[in-house]
Amino acid sequence: MKKRLFLFFVAALILAPACAWAQEGGPAASNDVIDLIWFTLAGSIIALVFAVVLIVRTMKKSRGPKEMREISDAVHTGAMAYIKQQYKVVSIFFAVLFVVLGFIAWVVPELSGGQRLLSRYVPVAFLTGGFFSALSGFIGMKVATKANCRTAFAASRSLNSGLRVAFNSGTVMGMVVVGLGLLDLSLWWILLRYVFLPLGWGIGSAAEIPPIMITFGMGASSAALFARLGGGIYTKAADVGADLVGKVEAGIPEDDPRNPATIADNVGDNVGDVAGMGADLYESYVGSVIATMALGSAAAGLMGLGEKALLFIQLPAFVAFIGVIASIIGTFLVRSKEDATQKTLLRALRTGTYSSTALIAVASFFAISFLFPGQIGLWGSVMTGLIAGVIIAFFTEYFTSDTYKPTKNLAKATTTGPATLIIGGLSLGMISTAVPVVTVVLGTLGAFYFAGGDTHVVTGLYGIGLAAVGMLSTLGITLATDAYGPVADNAGGIAEMTHQPPEVRRRTDALDSLGNTTAATGKGFAIGSAALTALALIAEYGQKVADFTKIDFSNVVANILSPNVLIGLMLGVVLPFVFAAMAMGAVGRAAQAMVDEVRRQFKAYPGILLGTDKPDYASCVKISTMGAQREMILPSLMAVTAPIVVGFLFGPFTVLALLAGATAAGFVLAIMMANSGGAWDNAKKYIEAGNLGGKGSPAHKAAVVGDTVGDPFKDTSGPCLNILIKLMSMVSIVFVGTCIAVNDQFVGLLRGIFGM
Amino acid sequence: MKKRLFLFFVAALILAPACAWAQEGGPAASNDVIDLIWFTLAGSIIALVFAVVLIVRTMKKSRGPKEMREISDAVHTGAMAYIKQQYKVVSIFFAVLFVVLGFIAWVVPELSGGQRLLSRYVPVAFLTGGFFSALSGFIGMKVATKANCRTAFAASRSLNSGLRVAFNSGTVMGMVVVGLGLLDLSLWWILLRYVFLPLGWGIGSAAEIPPIMITFGMGASSAALFARLGGGIYTKAADVGADLVGKVEAGIPEDDPRNPATIADNVGDNVGDVAGMGADLYESYVGSVIATMALGSAAAGLMGLGEKALLFIQLPAFVAFIGVIASIIGTFLVRSKEDATQKTLLRALRTGTYSSTALIAVASFFAISFLFPGQIGLWGSVMTGLIAGVIIAFFTEYFTSDTYKPTKNLAKATTTGPATLIIGGLSLGMISTAVPVVTVVLGTLGAFYFAGGDTHVVTGLYGIGLAAVGMLSTLGITLATDAYGPVADNAGGIAEMTHQPPEVRRRTDALDSLGNTTAATGKGFAIGSAALTALALIAEYGQKVADFTKIDFSNVVANILSPNVLIGLMLGVVLPFVFAAMAMGAVGRAAQAMVDEVRRQFKAYPGILLGTDKPDYASCVKISTMGAQREMILPSLMAVTAPIVVGFLFGPFTVLALLAGATAAGFVLAIMMANSGGAWDNAKKYIEAGNLGGKGSPAHKAAVVGDTVGDPFKDTSGPCLNILIKLMSMVSIVFVGTCIAVNDQFVGLLRGIFGM
Repeated sequence: MKKRLFLFFVAALILAPACAWAQEGGPAASNDVIDLIWFTLAGSIIALVFAVVLIVRTMKKSRGPKEMREISDAVHTGAMAYIKQQYKVVSIFFAVLFVVLGFIAWVVPELSGGQRLLSRYVPVAFLTGGFFSALSGFIGMKVATKANCRTAFAASRSLNSGLRVAFNSGTVMGMVVVGLGLLDLSLWWILLRYVFLPLGWGIGSAAEIPPIMITFGMGASSAALFARLGGGIYTKAADVGADLVGKVEAGIPEDDPRNPATIADNVGDNVGDVAGMGADLYESYVGSVIATMALGSAAAGLMGLGEKALLFIQLPAFVAFIGVIASIIGTFLVRSKEDATQKTLLRALRTGTYSSTALIAVASFFAISFLFPGQIGLWGSVMTGLIAGVIIAFFTEYFTSDTYKPTKNLAKATTTGPATLIIGGLSLGMISTAVPVVTVVLGTLGAFYFAGGDTHVVTGLYGIGLAAVGMLSTLGITLATDAYGPVADNAGGIAEMTHQPPEVRRRTDALDSLGNTTAATGKGFAIGSAALTALALIAEYGQKVADFTKIDFSNVVANILSPNVLIGLMLGVVLPFVFAAMAMGAVGRAAQAMVDEVRRQFKAYPGILLGTDKPDYASCVKISTMGAQREMILPSLMAVTAPIVVGFLFGPFTVLALLAGATAAGFVLAIMMANSGGAWDNAKKYIEAGNLGGKGSPAHKAAVVGDTVGDPFKDTSGPCLNILIKLMSMVSIVFVGTCIAVNDQFVGLLRGIFGM
Repeated sequence: MKKRLFLFFVAALILAPACAWAQEGGPAASNDVIDLIWFTLAGSIIALVFAVVLIVRTMKKSRGPKEMREISDAVHTGAMAYIKQQYKVVSIFFAVLFVVLGFIAWVVPELSGGQRLLSRYVPVAFLTGGFFSALSGFIGMKVATKANCRTAFAASRSLNSGLRVAFNSGTVMGMVVVGLGLLDLSLWWILLRYVFLPLGWGIGSAAEIPPIMITFGMGASSAALFARLGGGIYTKAADVGADLVGKVEAGIPEDDPRNPATIADNVGDNVGDVAGMGADLYESYVGSVIATMALGSAAAGLMGLGEKALLFIQLPAFVAFIGVIASIIGTFLVRSKEDATQKTLLRALRTGTYSSTALIAVASFFAISFLFPGQIGLWGSVMTGLIAGVIIAFFTEYFTSDTYKPTKNLAKATTTGPATLIIGGLSLGMISTAVPVVTVVLGTLGAFYFAGGDTHVVTGLYGIGLAAVGMLSTLGITLATDAYGPVADNAGGIAEMTHQPPEVRRRTDALDSLGNTTAATGKGFAIGSAALTALALIAEYGQKVADFTKIDFSNVVANILSPNVLIGLMLGVVLPFVFAAMAMGAVGRAAQAMVDEVRRQFKAYPGILLGTDKPDYASCVKISTMGAQREMILPSLMAVTAPIVVGFLFGPFTVLALLAGATAAGFVLAIMMANSGGAWDNAKKYIEAGNLGGKGSPAHKAAVVGDTVGDPFKDTSGPCLNILIKLMSMVSIVFVGTCIAVNDQFVGLLRGIFGM
């Protein structure tokens, strides 16, 4: 059965573009080339159907004995309570921005006699982006919280069964993210092109559609920033709070049911690592595709491609479609034997990922050579991204996995105490930024020139976008291998709390540890693609400046030797630092509140520690939830308002420099934080595996300090920076017209005052 | 006597420019305006004479009892041994670069038939810059190592006497740095203008002189980077090594004579904090003046200033002259009563600094309005720098002093262990970058527009340079308050080792703690001026690109939307991170070697700990010296070669972006590292003063971890970043012609290969 399905997909993958092409009689024969969006829509439906099949299959598995079910239910309830509160706060933000965007899009043109700073579809597009981003996280989390006890129970029978349940639930997340991403994209396209365009409602041609869609990217990024930041604060506050009072002060083991914060801790894995990551990667995926489509519009216009313009615009979405199909095929190749070791499990996951990558390379080669004869350079751009992704992922693993030298050496630093470990980890994180930056630099150049940047700059920039799309095209499967980690982690917690036999815990540990390795790979893709997408968005911002000031794109010049540009650069570089500091400070404050609550419960009900009283899990969940909600607002507002305020005061060229500076610094800081954090985590695991004195040794104590420092690095500040740089770019793009208008007024005012 | 001297200086300060002006019959009356360099030369001689007077006076003080003299001698010998070794390594580097520069300046024109990529004076100028920079550090260190026992002995009589000796020795450093800086500058000017120009030896006009002088800036910066980095590695390796084995493992107190590394530790204060800082600030001072003079040449040419061009070029040197006189006057105002408290001592130092600042403001107002009637905006640029310096210095103190909230709150984080302290300190450092960046951003804009940047861009950029000169004009006195700290620190060590009565140690502690506060101010100036100077150097680089490609400056466009520029930006941003990582890694490795040596001595000679055997101080000094020398080479080479290699491969516009990116990121990272490190240090001191449980409490243990992590931050990586960004800019400027020539060849080759 599965084999037939597999062959069917392969056939569809290779034949579909060929059929489309043949049907149209070749690319040059018709004026009305096929709308590739139908493939994208089909891809999204296939992904969603596949997700539903997997959900149904997962739900059929047994939830295990009563104790397992109880814990799973408590985690599920806590996660849902969190997400409800989160949506309350986020919907206020969305409502406010909806009103602001609505005012600019609908009221300003009336007041100013037709001056149109925003398309009228922008406010609604913004809402849908946020809605789908949140929905991806929600579904992923719902499934993950249902799958944790099932994984634990399956692992009590065999390692392979455990892997299947956890991996299936991760695959659901992967499929939901890509499926919903492409669905939102296709639906807007279809609506705008086939309904509003014929009606003549504010759209003159299909080329105007992608710039409007950038707004739903902004919606998706806003929702993702809240999800990542709120989830990141929640999970680390609960984690640190649980550890500091439970492990250190009361001396009870991790995941002990007597610890009031233990459920909050497990909830944290789900709201941070699952819901947060889902929304995050939804945003990355959609962002890369629409940014590239928008540049495609501009490039097609400049190149005078005529009837082929549409193909040019839709190529990114089509590459995404190929990626979806290849990812689904890849998931079928992830299988392991009953007696699998850690190594064979890793090989199983890798087989899936690499097969998908190879499939995409082959299929996109054929697709591009059919659709764009003579422009095979575009395939070069896609491949540049795909290869850069693999390189970055490898080096992320190299720097953070304890099978390689850097983390092994770092672990040795624990023997001279926590200080040398911290210095070593920071130094490791900083030096590890070199390879990804050089890779992205070469990838950027490669993608630019492959796509013909030496003749048309915009086409080259479009190539950079294609590289981002290429890098993320395997998302369906890389996210699956990534998102299964927290499920395995939770399953381990459940196994511990329900006192399963040691071999069960050993199996869940094996799954968890595998998850850490694949998560590193996933982070590499997220960071690398963020840099490339941000570069594409910066280019699109330049394009919008050209549109609004009615000059040619080649005349949009942000010269580094101009002080307005230099200051933008400095402001841009400092923003990620300030944002990261705010996020880390937030974790500290929220953790303190948790510490106080756990101490209060232990003091008020001494029976808790004796096992006679039941701790109040819900109040800890609530405190973490409230802390996260309160703390996520200020940094998020800074991200959204900074480019707007800078634009008002200093104009669009300063904003351009700000975006470039923030992208460069955010990229470097994100890698540093992810890799320092990952290396500290794995150095601790390396010692816990019995090296350098093992658990309880002074080395281990030092390693715990490193791990705690690394937590907000890798799970709160670091991942948010990827979203931050794209969100700022999108906000700038959406508000570009308003900024130029306000800045003109402001400069006029200044000149009036100083008589210049 | 002193009062008369004081009045004399005030009169000279105010009358000199007026006389000069009157003598010439007003600015417009003569074709041959006075050469302001004579003032600069006079200022340099006054500063150096003053330094000699202070040295003689200091040497007359008693060296105290035999034990004090012995320790002082051991530290002196160790420091000299270090500096000798350092000069050996550095002279190899200088010899190699001399040959390279000589080849380009003298041989290439012969080979290529006259193509002149470098002035023929460049190789020798490079050497003199390095020589004077090293000499500043050497003299300062020599005096400091002679003054430490004298301070300790003076403090055994009274606090005020101790302050006077230490402060005098700091003042020597201040005067030597500014004196030698202006001397090198004046001598080259006089040589080139009055000897080689009339002879027609490779110089066509006085306007060509400043760009040649940039090379001695490069020499000064290279020597400074080695001094800072080598000294920083040495001092932290010795410090960490002494603490880890001595305090932690053997359980003997700090500065205990039984610890073999204790002399190396005290040597470290001198080679790092005195010699390193001296070379560093020499480089900052000279760099800011010559970068601005070079821009002055360009601006004067563009503005068609005619006979006033010379005044325009020399204004920065003249402002420096005013600063020297004002600083000398300021040092006379630093006095305290016998019963002085910490607070009154601080007020005494502040009186000196603020009086100098006010004097400079007034004197430069008169000077500029006499020299440039109608262009008082130039004074605005100078003032912008002065004020920005004061603001940055205040906020540096705000974030790092334990009299303010941030460090107090940080100290509280120690109660929940080292991890929360580290997270809090990193977060504090990151958020503290916002104010200096915004200050520099506003200062940049202010200086630019005050100097008339809206009509002539180059003039505006010249204004940015003037702001840097203004900020550093008080260096004579700020460096005095800064450099006295390590002397007080050493005196404290000597008091401890020679078992002085507690009130002596209390006095030296008061002096030391005061030094920490003023050092924070000094760091603020160094960092702020580095950013402004680097911006001026970037502008000068742009100017050189214009010269070499024979286009107008306004056509030198590094557009952020071009991928060549974007990649330069990313590479630039990552460089400071990689450099900082290398420096931190170097400290770790050098410290490990020290730990091994101390352990070896304790094991081989058990009598050391019993007090019966004398430890081998010299071998520890040697190990630290060798470690520092070995480790400083790679990061320094990276700094020098990175812009050259990038220039060869990608051309001058990528280099321009690289410099801008490195300046922005280096600036932010330097502030973060300085402030995190300073706050951790003071949080520890705050606890040691008896708060939160005091010495020996768990909070104190956590604070020690923070302090150790902060050491390489604030004393190794952080301060080097200031030098790094300027050195890279100067290297780029010196090699610009070569880079353009090589890049043309390389691009031609690529085009040949790919048939483009």
